[in-house]
Amino acid sequence: APVPKDVDYANYFCTYAFLYHQKEMLSDRVRMDAYFNAIFDNKKHFAGKTVLDVGTGSGILAIWSAQAGARKVYAVEATKMSEHARALVKANNLQNVVEVIEGSMEDVTLPEKVDVIISEWMGYFLLRESMFDSVIHARDHWLKPTGMMYPSHARMWMAPIRTGIVDHKLGEYESTMDDWRSFVDETKDYYGVDMSTLTKPFSDEQRKYYLQTSLWNNLHPHQVIGTAAIIKEIDCLTATVTDIEKVRSNFSLSITMENAKLCGFGGWFDVHFRGRSEDPAEQEIELTTAPSVDYGTHWGQQVFLLHPPMNLSEGDDLKVSFVMSRSKGNHRLMEVELGCEIHQHSGKLLAPFKNKYYIE
Amino acid sequence: APVPKDVDYANYFCTYAFLYHQKEMLSDRVRMDAYFNAIFDNKKHFAGKTVLDVGTGSGILAIWSAQAGARKVYAVEATKMSEHARALVKANNLQNVVEVIEGSMEDVTLPEKVDVIISEWMGYFLLRESMFDSVIHARDHWLKPTGMMYPSHARMWMAPIRTGIVDHKLGEYESTMDDWRSFVDETKDYYGVDMSTLTKPFSDEQRKYYLQTSLWNNLHPHQVIGTAAIIKEIDCLTATVTDIEKVRSNFSLSITMENAKLCGFGGWFDVHFRGRSEDPAEQEIELTTAPSVDYGTHWGQQVFLLHPPMNLSEGDDLKVSFVMSRSKGNHRLMEVELGCEIHQHSGKLLAPFKNKYYIE
Ligand SMILES: Nc1ncnc2c1ncn2[C@@H]1O[C@H](CSCC[C@H](N)C(=O)O)[C@@H](O)[C@H]1O
Ligand SMILES: Nc1ncnc2c1ncn2[C@@H]1O[C@H](CSCC[C@H](N)C(=O)O)[C@@H](O)[C@H]1O
Repeated sequence: APVPKDVDYANYFCTYAFLYHQKEMLSDRVRMDAYFNAIFDNKKHFAGKTVLDVGTGSGILAIWSAQAGARKVYAVEATKMSEHARALVKANNLQNVVEVIEGSMEDVTLPEKVDVIISEWMGYFLLRESMFDSVIHARDHWLKPTGMMYPSHARMWMAPIRTGIVDHKLGEYESTMDDWRSFVDETKDYYGVDMSTLTKPFSDEQRKYYLQTSLWNNLHPHQVIGTAAIIKEIDCLTATVTDIEKVRSNFSLSITMENAKLCGFGGWFDVHFRGRSEDPAEQEIELTTAPSVDYGTHWGQQVFLLHPPMNLSEGDDLKVSFVMSRSKGNHRLMEVELGCEIHQHSGKLLAPFKNKYYIE
Repeated sequence: APVPKDVDYANYFCTYAFLYHQKEMLSDRVRMDAYFNAIFDNKKHFAGKTVLDVGTGSGILAIWSAQAGARKVYAVEATKMSEHARALVKANNLQNVVEVIEGSMEDVTLPEKVDVIISEWMGYFLLRESMFDSVIHARDHWLKPTGMMYPSHARMWMAPIRTGIVDHKLGEYESTMDDWRSFVDETKDYYGVDMSTLTKPFSDEQRKYYLQTSLWNNLHPHQVIGTAAIIKEIDCLTATVTDIEKVRSNFSLSITMENAKLCGFGGWFDVHFRGRSEDPAEQEIELTTAPSVDYGTHWGQQVFLLHPPMNLSEGDDLKVSFVMSRSKGNHRLMEVELGCEIHQHSGKLLAPFKNKYYIE
């Protein structure tokens, strides 16, 4: 069950109320170019149409939709950022087309159904933040039967990687534990209290923090040591909350590099703007957050580390079982169970492992 | 009005549920020595007595109270840290004396009234976190009429300071604004949207963040350029929430250094363990968080910066008007209004200023 509204605000929405944070998204050229091109290369989907922007933030997508000729744009935003969006709409002379509405998408009533729902709802590794739930809600309540979704499709990806962080994080974990042991000794010596019974829970807490929490990283393509697999495909027009609240997938990855050190897995996503099959985009646009030298995004990739890393070779095959579910305490965060069997090219079968990760 | 419980948990209590955070407090030698000595130098206040530890965390103060001979200790803790406290009590063989109770102090029912309330409730600049409210609640409900408070007294202090941070923060603010201006230009050029209407709100947001938010700092005593004044004195046995929820004070500070650059103000606190006037401590203990070379604490000092700094001289007098109130959205955070008139030794009266600060 989602957490109560005010808690959700304290945990989640609050950051979006800062212009600084909106500016970070607005400065992401790959993201901006994708939405800009999706709209202006497909003006026919916007000209004369009604549009709903779910989570308008600064108002940028609503403004572009209006500039592309929309008849009316409803721009819904949960936070006080709505006031800045309204000012921006006015400053760009679009107040007759764009109506900024402050409120949760789930609570808002529109005067009509819309032709297009546009939204930038993607979190780290696509589903973190669970904001797509709100887009689904909007679609099911406010999209005309003939309407379309911008973006229309989304996919999650995973690939085996190498990275120096794996040793670094293990080092940090080990030094925090060394520190703990001195602390236990000193607390006994100076203050007569034996803390050693907390060593195990402290170690668990620190393992979770240093070793099991996925990391934001801007991977270089050279760090990818094998094939990438699609974990999940989403059709934004038909997906339900049930489809996305638990992601289960089994897939294979092959090492494509000689003497590759498997340090973990990188996860990313892409989305596509294809319009609707009956009324496809003139120009299909892709927004990918895959490892890239020149086209990195603020999403980067999520890295799931493997401790200890394993030495593998070209042609080794990984059979991965992946389960991602929402955290019990906070439905916007994720927990991942990643199991792996490795069939080596030599014919040897390595001992399988199963790790738990947290996307915080 | 305090925020709802679950929001309070999301904003505040959550950090205390980590052993890592408890360890930081347990590693603060000045803090630990003060409470340790307060208890063991005044065993007569504990031997055979009933004690309540408000916010026991790891259980340390409850365990010491028991080791000092308490008959019974109630150790109340709001977070799951209570489970670790219970394990620690057991590992130190005190489970017959210390009873760990998980719950908010405000919700807990004890089987009896107590002789001593001990608590480490102090936040940055004493009152941040507003945890003393819970101690007052405990005292008014569970302390015997003859009972005593550990600590028994608390004071807030302020002094004029010099610090290099003042230029550093101004530099950060200016570079974030330079960045913003390029962003506005590029967004207009590349994406056809004029963001300049948001320049003022962005600047306000960044000023608040870089220039008006008080900073944690471990000041060197040489950075204090004048006399320190007491802002507020609290008798823990009698203070009410009304006494502390708004702190108003007018006080004078004198510059004691030649050619001193006034860069802002440092705020700190001390608490004393004096027992009760009818039954005073045998050994009075002080815990101070004043600037110190060898006895720094995890509280450090809070620094309120002055932009731009002012060149002053020995003998210049500052008349300060200080008002601290709780933030509207979060009663555990504070807002400060600090007005100042400067009478120079030369007889000159400088233009007064009044600044707003946030203790976040
Ligand atoms: N259920 C909901 N109702 C309204 N706004 C929501 C929402 N869930 C998330 N949001 C808002 O959606 C925004 C997502 S960030 C994207 C902002 C903007 N569309 C842009 O592309 O730059 C945030 O501002 C967030 O506050
Ligand atoms: N109203 C309340 N009821 C119960 N516990 C509270 C409380 N307000 C704060 N706390 C707890 O009080 C602790 C304060 S930190 C001090 C911990 C411990 N007494 C020590 O000295 O090391 C935190 O663990 C916090 O979770």
